Amino acid sequence: MDDWLPSLVTPTPQAGYDLAVKLSRMAVKFTQPDPAMREALRPGYAGDADALIAASQVVATNFATIAAANRYWRD
Amino acid sequence: MDDWLPSLVTPTPQAGYDLAVKLSRMAVKFTQPDPAMREALRPGYAGDADALIAASQVVATNFATIAAANRYWRD
Amino acid sequence: MDDWLPSLVTPTPQAGYDLAVKLSRMAVKFTQPDPAMREALRPGYAGDADALIAASQVVATNFATIAAANRYWRD
Amino acid sequence: MDDWLPSLVTPTPQAGYDLAVKLSRMAVKFTQPDPAMREALRPGYAGDADALIAASQVVATNFATIAAANRYWRD
Amino acid sequence: MDDWLPSLVTPTPQAGYDLAVKLSRMAVKFTQPDPAMREALRPGYAGDADALIAASQVVATNFATIAAANRYWRD
Amino acid sequence: MDDWLPSLVTPTPQAGYDLAVKLSRMAVKFTQPDPAMREALRPGYAGDADALIAASQVVATNFATIAAANRYWRD
Repeated sequence: MDDWLPSLVTPTPQAGYDLAVKLSRMAVKFTQPDPAMREALRPGYAGDADALIAASQVVATNFATIAAANRYWRD
Repeated sequence: MDDWLPSLVTPTPQAGYDLAVKLSRMAVKFTQPDPAMREALRPGYAGDADALIAASQVVATNFATIAAANRYWRD
Repeated sequence: MDDWLPSLVTPTPQAGYDLAVKLSRMAVKFTQPDPAMREALRPGYAGDADALIAASQVVATNFATIAAANRYWRD
Repeated sequence: MDDWLPSLVTPTPQAGYDLAVKLSRMAVKFTQPDPAMREALRPGYAGDADALIAASQVVATNFATIAAANRYWRD
Repeated sequence: MDDWLPSLVTPTPQAGYDLAVKLSRMAVKFTQPDPAMREALRPGYAGDADALIAASQVVATNFATIAAANRYWRD
Repeated sequence: MDDWLPSLVTPTPQAGYDLAVKLSRMAVKFTQPDPAMREALRPGYAGDADALIAASQVVATNFATIAAANRYWRD
């Protein structure tokens, strides 16, 4: 796999949030490497409130890490 | 998408809590970008205790990040 | 909404725990603003062990934030 | 309610773990204050692996807080 | 109960991971003290992917605490 | 079991992420030590969105630990 995570440092909070979303999706790729399979699952969970909330939880956890890595963009 | 997250710093704890709610909702938008679809899901989970608690968990996780970013509004 | 969260600082750990419970309930209010609807859901989840444990998890997450904000009441 | 949480500081890690279990149970009491109701639920979740694991997650979260409050008992 | 948690400090990361697994299991013991009952539940959850992933989440949470207690074994 | 976790320090964020995935899988091995049994479960959860998201949550939690251990690769 190519270099998809060169750094946790981002210029802005919003770029940090985008990276948190990316990290969340990468974990799914590690467990289900087949892109067609992942695509087939998408309509199901994108229309399921429980799955959307659970995905939101993963993003929140990753965002906590990235925000700390960027010292909350306070510097 | 426009600049929806310029900073994690807020003037008060309550404004920080509001931002935590916003962050939680944005993650859902990333997974389900269709506003009509999200709106259609809302009555279901707003009337489901498990989903309400799960959403509350996401807010709690995001609030932890924002509170740390604001040094708990102690300064 | 009125000023319900003026500070994360509390005089004692127990008052901090009470605030964690309050924070957990506020997130539910943001998702389901109708008090009658929330009241209608209460008997269901108060009698459901899974929901009680999930609610306990939210309180634990919020208590972690408040305890850190109070430097664990060690000062 | 009487003073059930005077301090997060404990003499040993094991006493800290016991306190984490106590904190986890208190959150359940806040949501379901009726002792008879809680007792009625116990056989169900004590025999349900998913509920046991979920309860274990709450204890882990509370133990993280208490361990930090005690500076991991390294002093 | 005997002294099962004398310290959070371990000589190596792997010993810390073993301790995280132990902490995760102890929480289950607190909720379900009967060894025969716990043993009876094991085949069910050991063959259930959702339960295995949930157990893995508990270990991850406890490992975070132990790793911090050991300053990540960097000293 | 051989020495599978000599250090939490990794040269890059991506190597840290790989280690987070490894930690997540090791917890499953501790609960279900039989490789054939784990392999039999894989098709089920790899095709189940809820399980994929839950697995992603475990990786996010472990990545938080590893990122902190590496001081976010900022040094």
